[in-house]
Amino acid sequence: MKKVHNFSAGPCILAPTVFEEASQAILNYNNTGLSLIEMSHRSPEFVAVMEEARNLVKEILSVPDGYTVLFLQGGASLGFLEIAYNMMREHKKGGYITTGAWASKALKEANFMGEGVVVASSDDKNNSYIPKGYTIPSGLDYLHYTSNNTIFGTQFKEIPETTVPLVCDMSSDIFSKPIDVSKFDIIYAGAQKNLGPAGATLFIVKDTILGKSSVAIPTMLNLETHAKKDSMFNTPPVFSIYASMLTLRWIKSLGGLTEIEKMNNAKAELLYAEIDRNPLFKGTVAKEDRSYMNATFVLTDETKKDAFDKLWNDANISGIKGHRSVGGYRASMYNAMPIESVQVLVDAMKTLESK
Amino acid sequence: MKKVHNFSAGPCILAPTVFEEASQAILNYNNTGLSLIEMSHRSPEFVAVMEEARNLVKEILSVPDGYTVLFLQGGASLGFLEIAYNMMREHKKGGYITTGAWASKALKEANFMGEGVVVASSDDKNNSYIPKGYTIPSGLDYLHYTSNNTIFGTQFKEIPETTVPLVCDMSSDIFSKPIDVSKFDIIYAGAQKNLGPAGATLFIVKDTILGKSSVAIPTMLNLETHAKKDSMFNTPPVFSIYASMLTLRWIKSLGGLTEIEKMNNAKAELLYAEIDRNPLFKGTVAKEDRSYMNATFVLTDETKKDAFDKLWNDANISGIKGHRSVGGYRASMYNAMPIESVQVLVDAMKTLESK
Repeated sequence: MKKVHNFSAGPCILAPTVFEEASQAILNYNNTGLSLIEMSHRSPEFVAVMEEARNLVKEILSVPDGYTVLFLQGGASLGFLEIAYNMMREHKKGGYITTGAWASKALKEANFMGEGVVVASSDDKNNSYIPKGYTIPSGLDYLHYTSNNTIFGTQFKEIPETTVPLVCDMSSDIFSKPIDVSKFDIIYAGAQKNLGPAGATLFIVKDTILGKSSVAIPTMLNLETHAKKDSMFNTPPVFSIYASMLTLRWIKSLGGLTEIEKMNNAKAELLYAEIDRNPLFKGTVAKEDRSYMNATFVLTDETKKDAFDKLWNDANISGIKGHRSVGGYRASMYNAMPIESVQVLVDAMKTLESK
Repeated sequence: MKKVHNFSAGPCILAPTVFEEASQAILNYNNTGLSLIEMSHRSPEFVAVMEEARNLVKEILSVPDGYTVLFLQGGASLGFLEIAYNMMREHKKGGYITTGAWASKALKEANFMGEGVVVASSDDKNNSYIPKGYTIPSGLDYLHYTSNNTIFGTQFKEIPETTVPLVCDMSSDIFSKPIDVSKFDIIYAGAQKNLGPAGATLFIVKDTILGKSSVAIPTMLNLETHAKKDSMFNTPPVFSIYASMLTLRWIKSLGGLTEIEKMNNAKAELLYAEIDRNPLFKGTVAKEDRSYMNATFVLTDETKKDAFDKLWNDANISGIKGHRSVGGYRASMYNAMPIESVQVLVDAMKTLESK
């Protein structure tokens, strides 16, 4: 099997042990004689998987008491709607920091049952920075932001200071470093970056917000529905939750998020150092706001494009074509990417320079 | 590996080749050197999977021109809400035939943005029959029914006659026999019975209904959103769709739904014949409305319970405990169940009688 250096922005690289154990579970789960995916979600076997996944999220993120962990469906995109429905209070108004495509889509859904207000935005410069020094208006029921912007390659380095209930879409950087969960009313994330395969969506919800919305919520969009049934109100996405549980075990086995963060810092610093050193490349966003998950960069000389594309292709690098909104290249370096793969990319960049 | 006879109501048995090929794809998809679940959903490889899955649905169900096939998330439970949003027209009123728990849940969501009207119901006799001879009132935007009732073990043998646009939740009997798709405006189904693992939801939608709702629809609940983006508006549940595609290939390889129906009829007739013959057992629903997917039955003499439970347990039968709403036993005989497994159950019933 050839070694591919997988820089895909998501779905993305997961740990080799996750692939191996998930593959085996599809054939015969824990010697039950049954495939994981043909067992009832109410079987003791799968109920134990769900419970372990939930407990590992709590342990790895040091989730304080008073929060519920849910595994739902629909991705962050359905989450945008669920956030607005569940967080609207007397003002029926949510504040949004719009730093990219996903943040703007989240804002849009708030206008369905209330009002979405732009509190700060980086839309003026193609989302190439994280807004700072903005004032949060009064009369908001919540403040929403997207911690990491996969497409544009920016990342919040600090949690916004606010007295308003805080909600964060952490789809593309959750589990990449420790976070202070106590600052948030809701954290949510599509699984398909650092957590597991596409098809599951993680919610970490402060219990005191449940049942407090000022708008009527359809059954499946009401977080209380799922909290009351331990994420088993309807059939959950069994395989995605199982593979997420395996990934959480793997994170724990490496020493948790403090260790994971060190590895992620080393990878990002290696690549950004080369982007800054090599005269043939430049980054596309403000240096202090650079994402440690998704590095976006372009060639300073577009005539070198064919030569560079051949170099990384020959090195078995995949998934680094930039999003059409930015162009150039995007190297996604999620938890499971070894630093050796980043070195292969850096070497290709150096080779281009030396030619 | 011990042979388990898996009568689970869902998630349920799938074909052995599906488990084998899905297991392999998790390790190395088509010799790409990448796992299926670490590839971008926009990679040529996965786009081809989505396209083949869609085309196989069309081919196997003989879907006429003018329909779009979608693979979404959220199960039929989110479908209940999507149906109501997308089908409400000038009357803002949907008719429902309530034949069980799922049909009643579907009705409930219609009241969120319109009105759900009970057109006919079997609630008076614990959903033990399919209503007949009812009148469909005027002023409905659509008529909704659930073709097979997994919990109660009843099944519509005929498509309801109506001039109103027809919508059907076929979660638990789609792909079990040929159907005339042209009679429906929307068919939808959670994957986790005859189609694939939990986590994907199939929609077959008449194109002329798209964009015609009289109510404002949130982005992710609007079927037009997904139709315009070929089910790729956001990251789809990659693994569930892939395994569904494998299952569809398997159905085709067996000769399609005409052959599948013959096998399902043989299995159901074998079991129902024993339920009717054996004085120790009786069915729980009207004979003419019996489900060919989920057979529900009880002991005529409850003192035999321990003896029977030991017999089927010893025979490696799993998943036949009845739902708490009905009690007794429920034997689910989905497409992938071999008739040999049904024979093992019938033998256990005969052994109980002979003791």
